[in-house]
Amino acid sequence: MFAPATVSNVGPGFDVLGFALHRPGDTVEAEPSDEPGVTLAGVTGDQGELPVDARSNAASVAAGEVLRRATPAGGTGIRLWLQKGMPLGSGLGSSGASAAAGAVAANALLDKPLNLEDVVRCAMAGERAACGSAHADNVAPSILGGIVLIRSYEPLDLVRLPVPDGLFVTVVCPHCRVSTGEARARLANCAFALPDVVANTGNLGAMVAALYRNDLELLGRAVEDRLVEPLRAGMFPAYPEVRRAALDSGALGCGVSGSGPAVFAFSDRADMAAGIARAMRRAFRDRASLNSDAWVGPISREGARVRS
Amino acid sequence: MFAPATVSNVGPGFDVLGFALHRPGDTVEAEPSDEPGVTLAGVTGDQGELPVDARSNAASVAAGEVLRRATPAGGTGIRLWLQKGMPLGSGLGSSGASAAAGAVAANALLDKPLNLEDVVRCAMAGERAACGSAHADNVAPSILGGIVLIRSYEPLDLVRLPVPDGLFVTVVCPHCRVSTGEARARLANCAFALPDVVANTGNLGAMVAALYRNDLELLGRAVEDRLVEPLRAGMFPAYPEVRRAALDSGALGCGVSGSGPAVFAFSDRADMAAGIARAMRRAFRDRASLNSDAWVGPISREGARVRS
Repeated sequence: MFAPATVSNVGPGFDVLGFALHRPGDTVEAEPSDEPGVTLAGVTGDQGELPVDARSNAASVAAGEVLRRATPAGGTGIRLWLQKGMPLGSGLGSSGASAAAGAVAANALLDKPLNLEDVVRCAMAGERAACGSAHADNVAPSILGGIVLIRSYEPLDLVRLPVPDGLFVTVVCPHCRVSTGEARARLANCAFALPDVVANTGNLGAMVAALYRNDLELLGRAVEDRLVEPLRAGMFPAYPEVRRAALDSGALGCGVSGSGPAVFAFSDRADMAAGIARAMRRAFRDRASLNSDAWVGPISREGARVRS
Repeated sequence: MFAPATVSNVGPGFDVLGFALHRPGDTVEAEPSDEPGVTLAGVTGDQGELPVDARSNAASVAAGEVLRRATPAGGTGIRLWLQKGMPLGSGLGSSGASAAAGAVAANALLDKPLNLEDVVRCAMAGERAACGSAHADNVAPSILGGIVLIRSYEPLDLVRLPVPDGLFVTVVCPHCRVSTGEARARLANCAFALPDVVANTGNLGAMVAALYRNDLELLGRAVEDRLVEPLRAGMFPAYPEVRRAALDSGALGCGVSGSGPAVFAFSDRADMAAGIARAMRRAFRDRASLNSDAWVGPISREGARVRS
């Protein structure tokens, strides 16, 4: 089961807006096991950094939550292998992709006892185990695909938004790392001023309207976060210059993916999206001596899926 | 020129979301004058409460701003009459309707030199003169009609949202008053916590999506303000009971209009909207000994207009 990377905290949508990429992503294989509960048989592609204890790995915790909900009497067993296909601490929803793949793989193995919304809930438990916060704006688009708005967490209320035709996403991830925990700690006890709240709600509403109207100019204008992004300034280097490089290369809008260091940009042409990637990578290299990876393409309408 | 009352601060949309009612509203008549600038020849329907000085009345200030922008050389004169058709301090955009009517009437008299967005800017100047704040979520829907999102104030960026079929609005205004200035003073220096900001941005995004999807259930769920409404609790009596009465009578959602005391409720049937009005009026009477006025109908797709 492959679950894609995701861009979350999109612009003004902290904890409420995320979308799926075509790649990169994580893969989980699941098979029945005689041992009750979830066993994590192997983790690859992580340079040995992720927990192999099934009780703390995002994929196995999420799968365990599926198992617990689907077979309350217990007794069933699942064995998992997790193959990381994306960088850790990148801001591209690494733990979210693992949790999504684990939850969807377990649900598939059990013949889909849970609906997709409940699978998202299970993946949120995996997310919490990995990074301390059960936010849904990575796991929901990783599972459902497309662009997902989280209207409410209690109760969980997900709204799938339309993916506009002709929208291209450039994602550039420099070879450095941001701890999601540390990024969240910067927000603890923060208080926000009304004018900035007004600006963010106006922008969030306009982003949603732009998706329905297929108005990419409006989408680009509205991708501006006045609340969280400023508080996290300086958590990774060269963001202002990378953003400037993206906009100067024709990007309609640009922002930090998750809590960074990945940066995303919107554009309306494939060749422009590629040129934006080159400019952003150059800015990371010139300003901070950082190499980087880039992914370019449309938003993925497909979420977690079996990949042959 | 008739300009309709409006519901602003809709749910989570403080300062960013408003919509037009069919009635009540204000009427401004305008004619050329030999005296340069804007003269306010009369104000009726206000029980003598509004300023008759053209430099401080919302209608004439807005008209003056149109004149200033349209005829920078000066010399032209406009004489205005303002007929108030709605209660003051009601939360239904009384100063906004006057400003909208004044600006649109002046622009019409001058053969429409300004586009509608510039007319909105002029009406915002009238709004500022009347209540100290140049917010646009009353004047924009009063001029443009329908539902308007203010994406940004600097620069002004308005997004017209679709009016769903089958949506009915009940507005009940008790015979008491809230000062917009005092209501705004309650928000001065306030700081907001991240979880409440997340809740409001999720709800605002969902409201916009609901309008495009014609999903009235979602619209009703999303009309919840966790930021501003709680701070203004107690500014007028019986709101919790009135809200409860609306929801118990089948309302999909309910909130304070502007800064109150008017309260609006959404529903999906005309007879239900009328029953909701009765229940809300009863709650104001039983809980706070307040008589009230009620208006029931769809959102008005038309804004300010010549009325024969």
